[in-house]
Amino acid sequence: MAEILPAHMIEGVVRGVYRAPDTFVTTPVEVLSLTYAGIPGDVHSGLYRQSGAREPWYPRGTPMRNERQLSILSAEELAEVATTLAIPVLEPEWIGGNLLLTGIPQLSLLPPRSILMFPSGAAIRIDGDNGPCRHSGRSIAEHVPGRPDLELGFVQAARHKRGLVGWVEREGEVRAGDVVRIRVWEQKLYAG
Amino acid sequence: MAEILPAHMIEGVVRGVYRAPDTFVTTPVEVLSLTYAGIPGDVHSGLYRQSGAREPWYPRGTPMRNERQLSILSAEELAEVATTLAIPVLEPEWIGGNLLLTGIPQLSLLPPRSILMFPSGAAIRIDGDNGPCRHSGRSIAEHVPGRPDLELGFVQAARHKRGLVGWVEREGEVRAGDVVRIRVWEQKLYAG
Repeated sequence: MAEILPAHMIEGVVRGVYRAPDTFVTTPVEVLSLTYAGIPGDVHSGLYRQSGAREPWYPRGTPMRNERQLSILSAEELAEVATTLAIPVLEPEWIGGNLLLTGIPQLSLLPPRSILMFPSGAAIRIDGDNGPCRHSGRSIAEHVPGRPDLELGFVQAARHKRGLVGWVEREGEVRAGDVVRIRVWEQKLYAG
Repeated sequence: MAEILPAHMIEGVVRGVYRAPDTFVTTPVEVLSLTYAGIPGDVHSGLYRQSGAREPWYPRGTPMRNERQLSILSAEELAEVATTLAIPVLEPEWIGGNLLLTGIPQLSLLPPRSILMFPSGAAIRIDGDNGPCRHSGRSIAEHVPGRPDLELGFVQAARHKRGLVGWVEREGEVRAGDVVRIRVWEQKLYAG
């Protein structure tokens, strides 16, 4: 059997919480209330959603469970991407982030099934890494005058640094300053 | 960055479908109807469940999303476990299997987030491997006279061979004989 890494816990800190009331771009909020359907009033909330370009194996618009309720970003990874793109800053709001975390190495590589646990009892189950798309790149370009190249540049620069998507496993509140405890499950590569 | 294995598709075949109408032990059925809440009338169905011994990080009985709606087993792995335990056969019903698959190497090692797609359009998202427990071992012992050692023996013998748990991503029907197409996502080990 291939190499097996044991399960372990890691910790980080919530730096900011954001909601997308009507557009893709998010806005800072004081408290993020998580329900089983995601963030109430957020454009990505819902127990269910329709499939899109990210699921080419389903006909476009197919009803499916919504495993992409939340976008979770790393402050360190955003800074790295900003450096690569030669821009002063990349704000989490520009690319629709709901949670900005800090202190977790290579957040975007956290394995699917990982569980993010917050002091209120709220918990998020990770579906997996979020592939960077031109839609996000365009939003960045709209915030940085004179840099239309960022639309495509982001897709390249943010590979494995665009954070995670996940769904609410336990309801509760999340605030900036919260410590987040993360369960990483036993890992092994599948060669079958 | 550590080794990255690319995404790929694999195929297997459904050998049997089963439902647990009232007890842990399942019964063969002609068709398995999958809804977002799992298998209607099955003891493990529900959009939500209460946490138990498998989630020591939550107080027992905590409400949570039900990521364990279905138990998915491999005919080849069951045969291997039966050989290790020196019993003629290990039936999927004894350990609460809902789906018996064949033709997929090392099914229990399929990574979390993998998607099982069936001809009807039904799809199951894999949460991850199912740890073998004494409860299953006891059920096997009850089916094999004179072998009380199977209760603990199964827990040892079935490690990484006890199949997967998952939840319904798309509603639809599953039948014995169906070809199952499986999307395995890009894989990398997380060392953070």
